[in-house]
Amino acid sequence: MIRVSVVGAQGRMGASVVQAVEAAQDMQIAQKITENDDIAAVTADNTDVAVEFTVPSAALDNVLKLIAQGVSVVVGTTGWTDEKLDRVKAALADAPHQGQAVFIAPNFAISAVLADKFAAEAAKYFTSAEVIELHHPNKVDAPSGTAIHTAHAIAAARREAGCAQMPDATQGEVASRGQSVDGVHVHAVRLQGLNAHEEVLLGNAGEQLVIRADSFDRASFMPGVLLAVRNVASGEHPGLTVGLDTFLDL
Amino acid sequence: MIRVSVVGAQGRMGASVVQAVEAAQDMQIAQKITENDDIAAVTADNTDVAVEFTVPSAALDNVLKLIAQGVSVVVGTTGWTDEKLDRVKAALADAPHQGQAVFIAPNFAISAVLADKFAAEAAKYFTSAEVIELHHPNKVDAPSGTAIHTAHAIAAARREAGCAQMPDATQGEVASRGQSVDGVHVHAVRLQGLNAHEEVLLGNAGEQLVIRADSFDRASFMPGVLLAVRNVASGEHPGLTVGLDTFLDL
Amino acid sequence: MIRVSVVGAQGRMGASVVQAVEAAQDMQIAQKITENDDIAAVTADNTDVAVEFTVPSAALDNVLKLIAQGVSVVVGTTGWTDEKLDRVKAALADAPHQGQAVFIAPNFAISAVLADKFAAEAAKYFTSAEVIELHHPNKVDAPSGTAIHTAHAIAAARREAGCAQMPDATQGEVASRGQSVDGVHVHAVRLQGLNAHEEVLLGNAGEQLVIRADSFDRASFMPGVLLAVRNVASGEHPGLTVGLDTFLDL
Amino acid sequence: MIRVSVVGAQGRMGASVVQAVEAAQDMQIAQKITENDDIAAVTADNTDVAVEFTVPSAALDNVLKLIAQGVSVVVGTTGWTDEKLDRVKAALADAPHQGQAVFIAPNFAISAVLADKFAAEAAKYFTSAEVIELHHPNKVDAPSGTAIHTAHAIAAARREAGCAQMPDATQGEVASRGQSVDGVHVHAVRLQGLNAHEEVLLGNAGEQLVIRADSFDRASFMPGVLLAVRNVASGEHPGLTVGLDTFLDL
Repeated sequence: MIRVSVVGAQGRMGASVVQAVEAAQDMQIAQKITENDDIAAVTADNTDVAVEFTVPSAALDNVLKLIAQGVSVVVGTTGWTDEKLDRVKAALADAPHQGQAVFIAPNFAISAVLADKFAAEAAKYFTSAEVIELHHPNKVDAPSGTAIHTAHAIAAARREAGCAQMPDATQGEVASRGQSVDGVHVHAVRLQGLNAHEEVLLGNAGEQLVIRADSFDRASFMPGVLLAVRNVASGEHPGLTVGLDTFLDL
Repeated sequence: MIRVSVVGAQGRMGASVVQAVEAAQDMQIAQKITENDDIAAVTADNTDVAVEFTVPSAALDNVLKLIAQGVSVVVGTTGWTDEKLDRVKAALADAPHQGQAVFIAPNFAISAVLADKFAAEAAKYFTSAEVIELHHPNKVDAPSGTAIHTAHAIAAARREAGCAQMPDATQGEVASRGQSVDGVHVHAVRLQGLNAHEEVLLGNAGEQLVIRADSFDRASFMPGVLLAVRNVASGEHPGLTVGLDTFLDL
Repeated sequence: MIRVSVVGAQGRMGASVVQAVEAAQDMQIAQKITENDDIAAVTADNTDVAVEFTVPSAALDNVLKLIAQGVSVVVGTTGWTDEKLDRVKAALADAPHQGQAVFIAPNFAISAVLADKFAAEAAKYFTSAEVIELHHPNKVDAPSGTAIHTAHAIAAARREAGCAQMPDATQGEVASRGQSVDGVHVHAVRLQGLNAHEEVLLGNAGEQLVIRADSFDRASFMPGVLLAVRNVASGEHPGLTVGLDTFLDL
Repeated sequence: MIRVSVVGAQGRMGASVVQAVEAAQDMQIAQKITENDDIAAVTADNTDVAVEFTVPSAALDNVLKLIAQGVSVVVGTTGWTDEKLDRVKAALADAPHQGQAVFIAPNFAISAVLADKFAAEAAKYFTSAEVIELHHPNKVDAPSGTAIHTAHAIAAARREAGCAQMPDATQGEVASRGQSVDGVHVHAVRLQGLNAHEEVLLGNAGEQLVIRADSFDRASFMPGVLLAVRNVASGEHPGLTVGLDTFLDL
């Protein structure tokens, strides 16, 4: 039985993680830490893996404390910069237990991770590629971090393969053409009723390949979270790992 | 038999119109005017309706000449401004024959005209609405005239119904949010392999309505052109008419 | 204030209706009737409109009782046959109060109602039309009642307009072509993660019109339920009314 | 310069191949063989690779003759059975030149080949998977060979990974559920205006992955044909090879 503590257990994502862990046959809940609890309660004695789902302003501090307390962490909170990641790496180098691991994923939805990967693989075979991401209207950032990641992955694959620049005869007023991320146009739709969706369009003369990931609700993240918990608990991925694709057998 | 002359018969659209007229049971080709021919050859004696498919810089002049020669015109060339339309109206007021008509359509694809109309009808029932238009990468303008028309129609319907502003929490960098046309966000994709496509997304809490028109090739415009020719030839629409929806029985 | 009683208040749909009524500025909850309560508690004295969301085997009985108790009803439960509707009509003819109304809708999602209506309007302008409905895998019937309704509406519109039969050269094994409903092919997808979705494809040479309604969750039905409650409470629709389109100003 | 002879040069696909070869910088046309010409004119002296695009009833005979004449072949004609493939293999074993190759692809559209591959890779991560293929109404078979291939690939991947059966509570009339191909439901739409399209839907609780390939016209096959010609001409793929994925660096 993997003993899982949830940091941010009062939040919507955290509560979903608690439910998912309780429903999993190979896991049990160790500690539920809310914003009023002391994270010091999560220790190597009572916890195999901590799942951190709080807010960007609190996450780094939480992760550093958990590392110091000897606990491996699966992090669902977003907002990680290179600088923050470096601090996590440094903390892991001084971690009390050998093999301690931190896993951070910008997106736990398997459909989104696969879409990202397939788009990058396919990109070099097409003349054009654009990304449309669609979210609920409460989202404050645009485009989404996932869409930026996908655009960079497409651009990198095309550079490596020596692809020509994408054709685009657009002249004049171009606000409608969206944001160019590393040369890949990214469009962000904000629509009541939607949750989190991404569509990659790839085109050649006479043909199109469309790869679309729809995340309809929080439930979509739970299989990815449990997959990460199992991989981190296995001890086979010590140190810092970023991205769920690492744990997909593709 | 409706006698149809085609101005711009050497172009791709013009050639398609010639074919479509020849295939129609109730029409026959009168004059085929290319860029090397004198448009004066098209007269009320030999022509019931002229179809003009040339370039924006030539269209107004062609239409004014045809009016003066006593011929009704179906115009497929784009690029009409209010000022140009006023000159057409003035010329029709002085036209040699009673009941002479000019019909101008920004889009002859029935699917596009219906999508535009349905989007406007539905707009007031939804919290959010956005427009995505997708075209081949040789298109020089963005967004498309059709998308601008659709956005204005959505905005007007919502104003009339007293709809609240659409929710949008986006902060900071917003190039990815596209162009706001009358408060409606419009996104333009340019992709090799595509022709002319428009998608309208309408959202409420828990639901979405998507209306999409795909024009795969020139063939898609011919039913609309023939419908316009028949309506203009009927004599029931004297003066200037803009928009194919006028001739759809909806 | 419209006083609304909810019959089936313990169910998922009923509970959502209670929430939606409580959130509406112009309504208040009168009685909440669960399966353990006596529906006789809902009377003309305490209730302007009853909303009935139970199960097909109970709905007719509930509606007849409510009519006899002098209460107008908005019915969300499905499974209505012509015979059942006739019994409702007969009961309304003998209703204690003048102007009592019963409103029954096969679908309260505005997107679905609009998709159905637009598909029927557009059908006569296209050579081909097919319907794809997509639902969660727990649904026991296929195709959905909504898809059957849409197919019949398309077929009726095409008959009235004298449209030719749709082209289809398919030979041999045809299970993949789905179910022909009144000559319109209907396909049913059952997929984990989906809720209730319908897509109508309409095609001409060179063009396609796609109309798609997505109902992601129960929230999508509430605007339609409240619209129906307001219309029934207004007293302007006495007797039996079927279909939310009656209350949409299209 | 790769010398390419086209067998079936009078057909629409053959004519497109001639154009594509003439436009390619590294190829030239050797022989154009129409139905009135003797295929014996294509020899190892004048041809590096023959491209065969005729009809299923003629293709095997053509390929056997070309092998006997010492020529490697890229085959675009469909309708290959295991028995026919065995005869090609046998002929290649007795071929006059070492390293002679025959390449057969059920589909030369890169988007379709990638969609097929990605669907198979993703299949084991999802609870449900279904295939929708959409074609012009002149197609005589349903479902398409590509859709059958995709369904088998999905089923095989799920068997290997030990996936549970897909959930489906459907009872009673099930024509709308399409054709079960190896346990994967396949739906075939026939719609005027479409050409050849395939959509794979993969679903988990709360999420969906959609992979869609659109082939709008014959142009979509040419990059795949040229890729096959180059690979066959390289001499690195002697014997019989089936499927364009062999030549994609994925």
